Formats: sequence, structure tokens, C-alpha cells
Amino acid sequence: MLIQVVNPNTTASMTDLIGRSARAAAGPGTAVVAVHPEMGPASIESHYDEALAVPGLLAQIAVGEAAGAAGHVVACFGDPGLDAAREVATGPVIGIAEAGMRTATYLGRTFGVVTTLRRTTGRAWELAARYGVREQCRTVRAVEIAVLALETDPAARSRIAAECADVVATEGVDAIVLGCAGMADLAAELTVRIGVPVIDGVAAAVTTVEGLVRLGLRTGKRGEYAPPPPKRYSGALSEFGVPEAVPVH
Amino acid sequence: MLIQVVNPNTTASMTDLIGRSARAAAGPGTAVVAVHPEMGPASIESHYDEALAVPGLLAQIAVGEAAGAAGHVVACFGDPGLDAAREVATGPVIGIAEAGMRTATYLGRTFGVVTTLRRTTGRAWELAARYGVREQCRTVRAVEIAVLALETDPAARSRIAAECADVVATEGVDAIVLGCAGMADLAAELTVRIGVPVIDGVAAAVTTVEGLVRLGLRTGKRGEYAPPPPKRYSGALSEFGVPEAVPVH
Amino acid sequence: MLIQVVNPNTTASMTDLIGRSARAAAGPGTAVVAVHPEMGPASIESHYDEALAVPGLLAQIAVGEAAGAAGHVVACFGDPGLDAAREVATGPVIGIAEAGMRTATYLGRTFGVVTTLRRTTGRAWELAARYGVREQCRTVRAVEIAVLALETDPAARSRIAAECADVVATEGVDAIVLGCAGMADLAAELTVRIGVPVIDGVAAAVTTVEGLVRLGLRTGKRGEYAPPPPKRYSGALSEFGVPEAVPVH
Amino acid sequence: MLIQVVNPNTTASMTDLIGRSARAAAGPGTAVVAVHPEMGPASIESHYDEALAVPGLLAQIAVGEAAGAAGHVVACFGDPGLDAAREVATGPVIGIAEAGMRTATYLGRTFGVVTTLRRTTGRAWELAARYGVREQCRTVRAVEIAVLALETDPAARSRIAAECADVVATEGVDAIVLGCAGMADLAAELTVRIGVPVIDGVAAAVTTVEGLVRLGLRTGKRGEYAPPPPKRYSGALSEFGVPEAVPVH
Amino acid sequence: MLIQVVNPNTTASMTDLIGRSARAAAGPGTAVVAVHPEMGPASIESHYDEALAVPGLLAQIAVGEAAGAAGHVVACFGDPGLDAAREVATGPVIGIAEAGMRTATYLGRTFGVVTTLRRTTGRAWELAARYGVREQCRTVRAVEIAVLALETDPAARSRIAAECADVVATEGVDAIVLGCAGMADLAAELTVRIGVPVIDGVAAAVTTVEGLVRLGLRTGKRGEYAPPPPKRYSGALSEFGVPEAVPVH
Amino acid sequence: MLIQVVNPNTTASMTDLIGRSARAAAGPGTAVVAVHPEMGPASIESHYDEALAVPGLLAQIAVGEAAGAAGHVVACFGDPGLDAAREVATGPVIGIAEAGMRTATYLGRTFGVVTTLRRTTGRAWELAARYGVREQCRTVRAVEIAVLALETDPAARSRIAAECADVVATEGVDAIVLGCAGMADLAAELTVRIGVPVIDGVAAAVTTVEGLVRLGLRTGKRGEYAPPPPKRYSGALSEFGVPEAVPVH
Repeated sequence: MLIQVVNPNTTASMTDLIGRSARAAAGPGTAVVAVHPEMGPASIESHYDEALAVPGLLAQIAVGEAAGAAGHVVACFGDPGLDAAREVATGPVIGIAEAGMRTATYLGRTFGVVTTLRRTTGRAWELAARYGVREQCRTVRAVEIAVLALETDPAARSRIAAECADVVATEGVDAIVLGCAGMADLAAELTVRIGVPVIDGVAAAVTTVEGLVRLGLRTGKRGEYAPPPPKRYSGALSEFGVPEAVPVH
Repeated sequence: MLIQVVNPNTTASMTDLIGRSARAAAGPGTAVVAVHPEMGPASIESHYDEALAVPGLLAQIAVGEAAGAAGHVVACFGDPGLDAAREVATGPVIGIAEAGMRTATYLGRTFGVVTTLRRTTGRAWELAARYGVREQCRTVRAVEIAVLALETDPAARSRIAAECADVVATEGVDAIVLGCAGMADLAAELTVRIGVPVIDGVAAAVTTVEGLVRLGLRTGKRGEYAPPPPKRYSGALSEFGVPEAVPVH
Repeated sequence: MLIQVVNPNTTASMTDLIGRSARAAAGPGTAVVAVHPEMGPASIESHYDEALAVPGLLAQIAVGEAAGAAGHVVACFGDPGLDAAREVATGPVIGIAEAGMRTATYLGRTFGVVTTLRRTTGRAWELAARYGVREQCRTVRAVEIAVLALETDPAARSRIAAECADVVATEGVDAIVLGCAGMADLAAELTVRIGVPVIDGVAAAVTTVEGLVRLGLRTGKRGEYAPPPPKRYSGALSEFGVPEAVPVH
Repeated sequence: MLIQVVNPNTTASMTDLIGRSARAAAGPGTAVVAVHPEMGPASIESHYDEALAVPGLLAQIAVGEAAGAAGHVVACFGDPGLDAAREVATGPVIGIAEAGMRTATYLGRTFGVVTTLRRTTGRAWELAARYGVREQCRTVRAVEIAVLALETDPAARSRIAAECADVVATEGVDAIVLGCAGMADLAAELTVRIGVPVIDGVAAAVTTVEGLVRLGLRTGKRGEYAPPPPKRYSGALSEFGVPEAVPVH
Repeated sequence: MLIQVVNPNTTASMTDLIGRSARAAAGPGTAVVAVHPEMGPASIESHYDEALAVPGLLAQIAVGEAAGAAGHVVACFGDPGLDAAREVATGPVIGIAEAGMRTATYLGRTFGVVTTLRRTTGRAWELAARYGVREQCRTVRAVEIAVLALETDPAARSRIAAECADVVATEGVDAIVLGCAGMADLAAELTVRIGVPVIDGVAAAVTTVEGLVRLGLRTGKRGEYAPPPPKRYSGALSEFGVPEAVPVH
Repeated sequence: MLIQVVNPNTTASMTDLIGRSARAAAGPGTAVVAVHPEMGPASIESHYDEALAVPGLLAQIAVGEAAGAAGHVVACFGDPGLDAAREVATGPVIGIAEAGMRTATYLGRTFGVVTTLRRTTGRAWELAARYGVREQCRTVRAVEIAVLALETDPAARSRIAAECADVVATEGVDAIVLGCAGMADLAAELTVRIGVPVIDGVAAAVTTVEGLVRLGLRTGKRGEYAPPPPKRYSGALSEFGVPEAVPVH
């Protein structure tokens, strides 16, 4: 079984980190390929970045499909392009926010999210509502460290750890969800340090996709998530259109 | 006051229709320019189309800002790219689904949506939840007419009218929201014919933007909707990046 | 186009202030008349005041209809009598709480309300739930200044400003809604001072009514909001009854 | 213990019917007085009627307080003036919609409401939401019989019975709430006939008030429901004002 | 009328206390018997305790039915076994959490819960959601006193009083619900001391059952709450099975 | 890795069926043991059965813990005893309703449940609300086949298939969740036949537990789900008590 993990931004070192987390999560017999699109932002820190990461992500989903990927992970906590990717892919597509948040609900009644920038917390709340965990999610905290600084800022780990500890102390949550794919390598260490389960969405999404594929479960395709209808596309995105004579599936 | 109405698809005849509706809605002293992006799908009928319409839409928002637009309307019922557009624009940006649905709530307790394709109804329900009108929205119906066929199918008007009438008869709603910018020219006629207010989101969004601009109200910019941080963009979308030395605002 | 703005309390100086805000909000070609009922409380600071303001309000709606008003604004933040007024009027009727709160949702993800007395905050929360913005409304704060003291208390403006600033600082909201028609003249100044949009419901309601009227949209009258059935009324309110032979519309 | 049941409309025969139901529900040692206001509509069938029934209702609450009533029932399914009455009264005040709906939730997971006119069903849904039983309330049905025709229309009982039976058959609800005080005498008979508990809100409210009074529980008066502040009232309602020197409590 | 109050734990002194509160709440002509099961935990302080208290509770419900009880109260704030007890009993069965919380909603817009151990607060929130009072319930506080220590810890009363006072001061709630049957004797005293209604769920449940029985209202038995189907039971619980030849009802 | 799957009823043939489904779902290197308790009902078809299945289930969880199980599945669609089992176990415990319903949300926007008896549908709705999928769950249908008759009734498979097909046709859902562990062997066949993913909760729960264990994620134990406090138990359940000197963990 091949699972494709797509980092929707275009920073290779982050893709590497995500790939390591994803491979560590995969079970025996599961291969993981971690990639990023050719086009798009170096990191995703705004709705603007997120929106513009999607075309490259979708192109990459198509590449993965052609390469025989049985399922896909969208490895950015805003779950960009998830609905569109589900239309394009035949196998399941899972976002790390949905996997992270839903996984948390298996481990207790409540959880908190610790993420990078305050300006992204609105999107996290929106996703919590969409995924039906608005009540369980008690807080979304930001450490105000830029996504790419997670790798370079020597204080990043300790600030994230401190925020997680504070969430547990003040909100009494049963679990914590890390709100950025760039924090993937912190989950195991923090779980021990904080004393509650700390969830990396990348790992959670990989095991979720793996389970779905093993059970033969794919996105329902009889309605909203059927392949997109063939369509003429104009301009710089013209290659995204699907000629009527050559249906996607 | 100049309001830019962006049709996120790339079909000129539909932009013309939208422009006519928008101009008819605008008050004295308000100029409306209706445009569509250079790149993107000919029509928006899937999450895929919607996602790929956004880069062109955002480029057009920037063009409108440079041309002095005081506010913007996103004229597609999926409200694509709305959050990103709000980061980019200085003036208010309103989607036709949010304007249409919220306007309906001023006219009665309940409403129904009549839209084009069944596969888009999931998105309509998602937006109803986001806009806080999930309870008021009693049904989302599709006439199964493709977006561009609204202009060419001679039976389109009568099928839409019949569906609206059926929604009122079976659901007892107080109002109807038309679920596609391509239906903009039907609202006045249907309001008379059906006997309940039938709302065109384009017109509703234009008057909403106009009111906000007149009151000096703009998107709050101290948090989630601050201008996107400068960032390197790769590949075909590299022109979307914002060099650090030249902040957007 | 004539818009009637009804101040449901019977204090003329407050009606004047509301009228100034309403007229400043109206567009070219729109006339605004600001009135208050002959009967009712000097200010509205309890459910009791609100309930007893309604008969006078409804009488005034009827007066405005007779005078050719195309639409009406109910200028008290509890939106008293709104449903009844919609039955009586032919044109749209908008409350300043609904207009203020819904307008806020166009300008960001979250907002806070700053109002007069703590005892009225329960009603504000109830309206937020009714209008579908319970999630977006993060706080309702009271400055504990009586309604009529807004005009006379020299510290009123600075205390309101301080509360608004505190709401932004501690809740991180994108916008603020002023929770009393008597604060109408503060919005523009506070928008500049606080750095987020501060919304006066009176102005928001006026532009909303104006937009609805221009689009030919009125309350749906086929169900709940049909004219009230003719009915015998007893006692001091006997003139409110509608003889069967003379239907309202 | 004296409980005052206020029929908010001014039709004596209906007050008599309500009084009989209320007295039958009261326990040993509890006296019930059933009254209607001097002013207001003959029946309540619209928001307009409801709003204009409130001044008379509030006057009657004050009369009952003076007469030593330990608690009050508002015997109209729209629960008009409930919040205001709670400010005015020292003892508990219960509406028949809240008592009826909450009582239903003790008897099963779901219930349906059967009421008079379709135009009042929106208000019933609004109250279900306010009382936290929106999910349990599966349907609100109207038999299209005017309130006062309940006494005179020979087909009324059979039509109501048929509607109740249909609600059980098609919705599978565990209980039914009768949606009008004028149906009070039907509950016992229908409970037997339909085979699920059929609840008369008047009876439910009387036993609820009785229980609260026996336990010494009254409306909390430290916040929203404190006595209304003294206030000048103008015009026909001037007697409703409370001079500053003579506080209500 | 005989009402059976079941203390689901097996501590006699607590049953005595509950019985005193229950008898004080009952009206003239109502007899109350307070009992506890033969099997089960000495106190209920975890989901584990709660789950294992249920078999004994259900056996006791059957005993009470045989003894002619017209209705039952489940006197533990987790409302253990409520659905099952409703299937088994012919008369109404009321839990003290549901009665306490719903009673609070008659007395104001908001309430807080003060309970024993922090680990039980999650269950209280879950019940608040189930009973439709999630929005009205503003806080659930724990004093961290074990259930049985309520009787023996000399500081218990003052700590509970202090927590109640703090809830009112910081949350501004209109009422307080005591979150443990072992606090039943505190309600009257605290109501006076704190100045808002403080509700004992035992008393609230007794008057609720009493009212339902007087009105002839029982659990709806045509669906979910019909008597459990006859069934073979194995092992230590074999006496709980119902032979097919001897239906429960 | 050893996963224990507990069938909470005491019917061996059903345990065998569940075991086969569970083993088919498990990945390489994962051992599955399927067991049922010594005590409890032959099948679970009421709240009463469910409540009385829990003591045996909890005993079996303890047995599994002692045998080194890394995680547990509760294989009954009512998810009985889930909270208590989470307190007792060190590894994760997953119910088949939660796993089935949440898995459905990864595969589309909406799903339906097809279960055995109508009387159990209320519990399914309650769980959907608890798990945050109330909105996504569009219908819960019952085929009115008793749990144990699933194995013996020759028409069972075709009736279930017909109901699934009808749910898709009339509700347009993207996926179906089978509402009974006794239907575990139908999922693959129905997925092909109906054309949307049909989910067996047993399989979904096994892969979910497997993923959690591989990631080192366990129930958060710092609050609500800490081991139950030591406690004296009386009567037939006395062995369930935990002596104070021998803490569970």
C-alpha cells in the first residue's frame, strides 16, 4: 500500500520532517511518499497562502493517483483543498486537522489545539465546527512562531511545550492537538512531558488513511464528491481543465 | 463610489448578466464594474472548479483595489476565496451566498435555496451553517441545469420557477434565495410570480457593500484578516508572492 | 424613498440623536424621518420597559405606513416588537440589533457587543442566538451607564471607549457592535480610535432597509408574517383591534 | 397557596375552560384563580395579538401579586411577556409552552406539538429553541382552527385527535404537547385515545409553579430579572410607569 | 400517592439524608420511600461506579413497582440508568440532574452547577447538553470533596457555600444547581445566604414526579421506552433476564 | 500488538462473527482476540439490556488488560460502558458506533445508519449528537429484525440491502454505517452493491485502535478518565470494588 503525503507548501525541509513523521506512523507493508507541489507559497500562514497552495496540491494529488497511491494526506492544519482533492482522488484523502481533532475525541472528552500564529486560530475554530468537535475543543492557542521558524528558532520547542502545559493546567483538557505539520516531531516527546496525549495530525492522518484503505473504504462518489465535470480552463491554470472527451475517471 | 463585482468564472456572457443585475441594484452615485479573471474555469460546478477559480479571483481583487474599488462582490454562490479576498482588500468583500442568505433572514423566519446542480448542495448547506442560518434554511434544491445552460436552455426559467413554487408549497418558507449568479435576472420576475421575496445574491451583495462603504466600515484588520505576510511563491503562481520589502499595504 | 426610524422610547432628545445618525447613513434620494411613540417608557432598560414600548411602536409603524414609508427601523437594541411590526408593515422592518450583529459578521469572524446595563445582556445573547451569530459573538459587555445618562454623563464616552478597547484586547474580536441606539454618534470616532470597525446598529439598519427597498424586497407575507387577522380588542388598547370589515391591507 | 393563572386574551369562556383545567391539576391545599386582563385581544393568533396582550397581562400579574398569589401561570402557548412578568412578580412565573415542552422531555426522547393556526408555528419553533428542546421537538402541526373556534367548531376535537394520531404514526414521537390553552380539556381523553402522553401546558404549568412555591424557589433577582427600574411612562400607558420614589419592591 | 426515591449507592446514611429532603419536598397526601440497592458502590464518583450502580438501581425500581410506587426518583447527579429505568417502570422516572437543571431554567436565564469532584464535571456537561440546557449552564464547579465526606468533613458546608457565592459573583448566574444528592440539605440555607435560588435536585425531582403522577402522565411506551423484550441473561446477572413466557408488563 | 474485541452480549456465535470481521480488518503483526462476558444478556435490544451488559463488559476489559491487550473495542452499536471502560483500561477503548460514524465523516459530507430495531434508533441519534456528527447523520433506519435473527433470518441480508439502497436513493447520503455488530460481515458486499461506502463499525474500530496503539496514544488520564477511586462494593457486585490498599494502576 502506497500513501502519498502532500505538504501543501513548497519548503523541502518541512516536507522531509513531515515524511519522517508519516513513515514512523505507517504500519508494516505501507509505503509513504512525502512530496510538495511545484507551485505555491513557501509556508501557509494566511487564508491567502492557503488558497494559493491548493492548485499545486491538486496537481500533486493527480500525480500521486497516477503513481498508484491508495490514499492521500493533506499535511497542513488548515486542511486546504480537502473537498476538491476528494473529488479528484479515487482513494481516501484525509486532512491533518480533521484526523488530529477526531483522534483527540477518541482519547477524552476535551482537547486543546496549540498552533503557530494567532491569525490562523479562526480557521482552526472553523474546522473544529465543521468536523463536529466544536464543543470538545476548549481552546486554540498560538505561540506566535512563524511556520518556517519552527525549524530554526531554538526556543520553539520549549515555547510549544510551555503552551501545551498551560493549556492542560488552565483548561483541564484530556488531550492536545498540535496545530501545524511542522510540529510533527514533537508529539511523542510532549506526550511524555505533559502527561496527556499530544497528537500530531500527520501521524494520525497516515494511520487513518491506512485503515480506510485496508478496509476498502473510499470517498463516496455518487454525489458531491463525484469527479469534477469536464471543463474548459483559461489562462495560467488552463492545464487544470479536463477536456470533455477525456473524462478524469 | 466604485464597487467591483468579480464573476469568479471566465465566461464573459455570464459576467455581462451579473453586471446588469449589479448595476440595477446600485444606488445613485455608485459605479459598478463587473469583471472576470483571466485564468480559471469556464463555470464553477465542483469543489475543484471552485478551488481553481480562486487564484484568478484574488488577482482580480488586487486589480480592483489598484483601480480604486471601495468594495468587492464575489459573484459565485460558493463564495470562493472569500476569506483570502478579505485579507487582500482594504474595503469590504461580500459573497453572494452570505448576502443572499442573510438578506433572506430579514424577510421572514425561513427560506429555501434553489440552485443548479445537486452536487453543489453540500457546499450550500456548509455555507448556511457558517453564516449562522442553518436553522432558517429549510431546503436546498437543485434543478439539475448546468451553470452555463442557464443562458441557453429554453426550459431553464420555467424549471426554476416551478422549483421555487414547489419549495414554497411544500416547505412553507417565507423567502427564496437563488443559488447561482447566473440566475440573477430572475429574481424580480419570480418574486411577483411566486408571491414570496426571491433574492438574487448579486443584487443583495451590491447593496450590502454599498451600505458598508457609505458607513466607512471595512474588514477588521487587527487579527485573522490582516494583510497576508510577505512570502516567496514558487512555480506558476510565483507572481502571487509578496516580496518582504514591498508589503501589500 | 422614505424610511421611518422609530425610537421605541419616548425621549425626544434621543430620537434627535438617532435621527442624525440615520440621516447620515442614508444615501442620496433617501429621506429619513425619526419619530417616537406617544405612549411608552422614557427609556428601555428592562423586559418590562421593552414589552410596554411595543404598543406605541406598533401604532407608530401604522402611522408611518399611512405616511408612505417604504421601510422601517426599530431603533432599540432589544429589537422590541419586531415580529409584530413585520406583520403590520408592508415594507421591510429591521431591528438595530439584528442589523448591527449581522453587519459585524460581514467584517470578520468575531465581534463583541458593548451595551449600557448588565441586566440587558441576557436579551442581547438571546438575540444573538436568534440571529444565528451566537458563535461569532464572543462577549457582551455592559458599562453600567443608564440609557438616558449616555447623553448627560460626561464620562460616558470615555468609559464606552475603554470598554471597546478592552474587548478587542482581551477577546481579539474583529469588530464591535454598539448595544444601544443612544450610542449611535460614537461609531465613527471609535472605529478610528480602537482600530476595528465599530458598528452603530441604527446606521446599519438604515442602509439595510434602503437596500431592501431598492431591490423591491419585502417581508414574506404568505405565512407567519401575513397581516394579523381582524380581532376585537378590549379596554385601553381597543383602538388596536382591526374590525373584520376593514382588513389592514 | 394561591396560584394565579392569567389567560392573556380577553375571552371569558376561554378563561373558564383554562380555570377548570388548572384547578383539576392543583394539589390539595392549593387555590387557583383564573383571570384575564381588562385590555387586549379577544384571542391571540399573531405576533401582533401577542404583543398587545402583554400590557394587560402585566397589569394582571401586578393585581395577582397584590392579592397574594405565590406564583403565576401565563396561559397562552406563545408565552407572551414571560420575561417582563418575571421582573414584576416576586414568585415564579411559568409559561404553558415552556412547561408543556419541558414536561414532554421527562416522558420520552421526542415530542410533537399540535396547535391551532399555521401562522403560529414559527413562534412555537422559536420557543422550542429557547427552551433547549429544539432537537426533541420533531414537528409542530396546525389544525387550522381559530382559537375561539375550538369552543364552537363541532369538528375541532376530532380534527385535533386525528392530527395527534398522525404525528405519532408518522414521526414516532413519545409524547404530544397541545399548543393552545384552549385545548386544555382534551389532554386526558387524548392520552387514552392516542396511547402516548398528551400534555396540556396549563396543567403542566400549574403543577410546576406549585412545586417551585413549595420548595421556596423564586425567580433569581440579582441580575436580568431584578424589578424594573423606576421610569416615567407617557400616554395611554402612563400608569405602567413606576415613580422613582415608590420602588416596585 | 407513593413515590420511591432510589439512592443508587449503598450508603445508608446518605439514603437517610436524601429521604429527609424528599419528604420535605412532597406535598400533602404524597408518601415518599427512600431506599438504596443491595448491590453496588458505596458512593458514585466515576463512570465505573455509575455503571455498576445501575443493576442494583434497576432491581430497586422493580421492587418499587411491585410495592405500588406511582413514580421514581433516581437520586444521583449522574442520572445513572435513567433510560433503562424508564423502560422498566410504568410510572414516570426522573433523575435529579435533569430535574435540577430544568428547574433552574424556570428561575432565570443562566445557572451554574456546584458539585463534588472535578472528575465528574464532564458527565455534568454531557447531561446539560442532553437536557438542552448547555447554553444556560455557564459553569460546572467542583469543591473537591468526596461524596461521603460531605457528611463528615466539617469544612464541607462552608466550602460549598463559598463556591456558590463565587459562581454568582464571577458568572452572574441567576440560579445554582447543587450537583450531588448528598448536598440536598443545603439548598434552603444557601438560597438565603447567596441570594439566588439554590436548587436541590432531589426536592426538584420529587415535586416533578408528584406533578406528573397527579396529571396522569407516564413515560411514552410506544417506542424507545417500551418494556424491554424478554431475554436470556447469563451469569451473576441471570435473574435480570425476563423469561419469554412472563412479560414484564 | 494484541487488540481485545469485546462483544458485550453473551452469544458465542455472534462473538465468532465479530471476531472474523475484526481479524480481517487488522493489519500485519496485530493479533485480535474476540470475547464476550460471562454475565449479561444474550443480545442488546433495549436500554435495559445495554445497562446490564456493562458489568460483564468491564470485567472483560480487566481480563484483557491483564492479558496484555494494548487496546479494546466495544462491539455493540450502543457503545455501552465506554466511559467506564476508558477509566479502567490503560490503552485506548473504542466503541463501534463512534468509530463507524466518525469513519463515515472521512468519506463524505453525509451518512445514514441502518440498524436492527426501531426502539434502538433513539440511542443512535443520541450517540450521533455526542460524537459531533448529528448534522452529518441524515437518517437512522431500522429493518425491524432482532439482533440474533440477523444470523438466522434468511431474508435479513436482502432487507438490509434494500434499506441501505433506499437510504441512498431518498437521502442522497455519501456513506452508510451499519448499526449492529451482527451486520459486520455485510459491509464489503454492500459497498459494492449499493455503490457508496458501507461501514462496519467493528472493522473501523479495530483499525482505529491499531492506529492509536501504533502512535502510542492512550486515553488521557489526568482528569475525568483517571482510574476509578478505590471503593467498597456491596452485594452481587462486590468483586467490582477496589480495596483502598490495592489501587487499580
